[in-house]
Amino acid sequence: MKQSIIKLVEQIKQERPLIHNITNQVVMNFTANGLYALGALPIMAHEKNEVKEIVAHADALVLNIGTLTTEILESMIVAGHAANKKGIPVVFDPVGVGVTTFRSHAAQRIMSEINLSLIRGNAAEISHLAGLRATARGVDASEVLDGPSIIKQSTQKLNVPILMTGKVDYIANQEILYQVSNGSELLTKVTGAGCLLSSIAGAFLAVSESCILAVVAAVSYFTIAAEKAAEKTSFPGQFQIELLDALSSITEADIIDRLCLEKVGE
Amino acid sequence: MKQSIIKLVEQIKQERPLIHNITNQVVMNFTANGLYALGALPIMAHEKNEVKEIVAHADALVLNIGTLTTEILESMIVAGHAANKKGIPVVFDPVGVGVTTFRSHAAQRIMSEINLSLIRGNAAEISHLAGLRATARGVDASEVLDGPSIIKQSTQKLNVPILMTGKVDYIANQEILYQVSNGSELLTKVTGAGCLLSSIAGAFLAVSESCILAVVAAVSYFTIAAEKAAEKTSFPGQFQIELLDALSSITEADIIDRLCLEKVGE
Amino acid sequence: MKQSIIKLVEQIKQERPLIHNITNQVVMNFTANGLYALGALPIMAHEKNEVKEIVAHADALVLNIGTLTTEILESMIVAGHAANKKGIPVVFDPVGVGVTTFRSHAAQRIMSEINLSLIRGNAAEISHLAGLRATARGVDASEVLDGPSIIKQSTQKLNVPILMTGKVDYIANQEILYQVSNGSELLTKVTGAGCLLSSIAGAFLAVSESCILAVVAAVSYFTIAAEKAAEKTSFPGQFQIELLDALSSITEADIIDRLCLEKVGE
Repeated sequence: MKQSIIKLVEQIKQERPLIHNITNQVVMNFTANGLYALGALPIMAHEKNEVKEIVAHADALVLNIGTLTTEILESMIVAGHAANKKGIPVVFDPVGVGVTTFRSHAAQRIMSEINLSLIRGNAAEISHLAGLRATARGVDASEVLDGPSIIKQSTQKLNVPILMTGKVDYIANQEILYQVSNGSELLTKVTGAGCLLSSIAGAFLAVSESCILAVVAAVSYFTIAAEKAAEKTSFPGQFQIELLDALSSITEADIIDRLCLEKVGE
Repeated sequence: MKQSIIKLVEQIKQERPLIHNITNQVVMNFTANGLYALGALPIMAHEKNEVKEIVAHADALVLNIGTLTTEILESMIVAGHAANKKGIPVVFDPVGVGVTTFRSHAAQRIMSEINLSLIRGNAAEISHLAGLRATARGVDASEVLDGPSIIKQSTQKLNVPILMTGKVDYIANQEILYQVSNGSELLTKVTGAGCLLSSIAGAFLAVSESCILAVVAAVSYFTIAAEKAAEKTSFPGQFQIELLDALSSITEADIIDRLCLEKVGE
Repeated sequence: MKQSIIKLVEQIKQERPLIHNITNQVVMNFTANGLYALGALPIMAHEKNEVKEIVAHADALVLNIGTLTTEILESMIVAGHAANKKGIPVVFDPVGVGVTTFRSHAAQRIMSEINLSLIRGNAAEISHLAGLRATARGVDASEVLDGPSIIKQSTQKLNVPILMTGKVDYIANQEILYQVSNGSELLTKVTGAGCLLSSIAGAFLAVSESCILAVVAAVSYFTIAAEKAAEKTSFPGQFQIELLDALSSITEADIIDRLCLEKVGE
């Protein structure tokens, strides 16, 4: 597995996939710089009249509803259809789904109209998308179920590969479940870390035949970079900078020495 | 006073208030990271169809007109009404008011329709809001009046607590006036420092019964962080990073040793 | 030439020109901080109802189509007309022109309706704007022509001074052509470097009578800052910070010792 991850990293640096992000305004700059650091090429564009043509140039599409508006939802639908028609991967990041009716409806629409390659969210977001209820009283499933249970039930219900991030990161489709235990708590102290990982997953999906391998590789690369960054600083401002620097300089040896990957179930 | 400030800081770190920011596109990332560094939780959302529900989850609302559009003004009004109904604090940051008719009208509408907990601006913005004219020829009051005079007259006219930032920061309601003399000139060399302080004031207001104490605490915490950051670097790029790091690590001792707070009038 | 550049830098720091940017959402923060670092004052505003009044306060206008929407294009046209009427410089940065019909039409409209002081783009963007075709099969001219040929042909066709950035930066009008060979490859590893240079060119144009001198000065200042920043770090995250710091601290000696400026043709 480690050799396959290293090969995908090499492919990104050589092929430089163009990642089209329709994402939230808070994280645009950080996402663009993170993709550059990895060796991919970012493009941000959300005008309805041009997203189809942007997709025509892109190698993957990432949809993130963090500061979604009615207009941008329409652009996402147009871009998503174009990406499906072209056959490039589409990653969906349902930021804050469940917090408002608008986001929940938007997420439902995206999931029903677009063929998604991957959904990336935290336990609460994934549970909400899958309609998991732990009890009759509607308590959030993420508070009573463990990670593997949530992601397994969710992939069954949603029929889409899922990356569920948290203290441990889980990657699953309907057949297989992996977990990655690298990373740093500092990832929760800065804005946009999860959003950046969604876009990085898009870059790995763009160069890989296997969805699960690509997502495992993306999580491995990103969380090992976070680990290295957290060895340089314990403060959130400097951590952002160190994370970008680490994303630009992870070596084969880093992956071989550090990766904590486990197959949890089949 | 120092002990009360320290207690509020502790409360923020424990209660982690959720601060809903409808703010300008330039400072969204910096504001979100600054709130995280403090220990609060940021959410940025401006779609009219969801802001009411976002407010339902929030502990304070911050309205900043830096890159205001007609649509976002409508969202601010909806969110402001919801915040008033729920009883959470609303901070208004009138960026650039007076520069255009659009901003001046927007500010008037926000002030007349929303019950504000605090207005945060510089002397020119506050003078404009309060309609202060120093002379018959309409010279900007901020050029001829001193800080205490401007803020006292403005709180009388506007009947809202005010935080007026500058070389010295003034905090006042109709009864009392404080000044804080901490800070660094580097705050004027980076974008979004004032905007971040407005959001940090929202976080302190969210955990305090007393408005004036909360705002004094916010200014104290923020300007002491700036002072510490400026001891690490004299350059603006690194200063942004150091400011975030300092916001995450101010100690009781920092507040006790450094705070330059003075009651100026009653 | 070096003394004239130094004099313009001094003028920016003293006159503090206000640069009105209607720019893309990815780079707003970096652009604002870069202008502050230089000593200029940034303002970002794109609401159609206020851009005319913003221009009334501004010393230069910068139009950047990186995340353009239909609405913001209208604001650009209004702002551009106001800037022309007032007689302040207008810089156009045609990000990604040629990638979509929407951007190409937008660029055509801006070029036909607004009197531009400068166009800043890479070789592909400039070639597209000028309609250069290297062969009958429509191969991108930037792949077969050298830099001096592209910029010379483009200034003839477009009749606007051009700054064409790349490994070497070219500055030309219909009479004269300069090249600057300073800079760093790290400029291509972070987002928004070119966009920031466009805004910095706006600042130099705001304080200069001579367009070509102003643009040569802007490129010299910016690329020498990049060179100094790249001496401090070889990583992209830290490079952004070092670039801002260098922009705030370039000295006379830096310009005299480092500038690689050459007159290529007349």
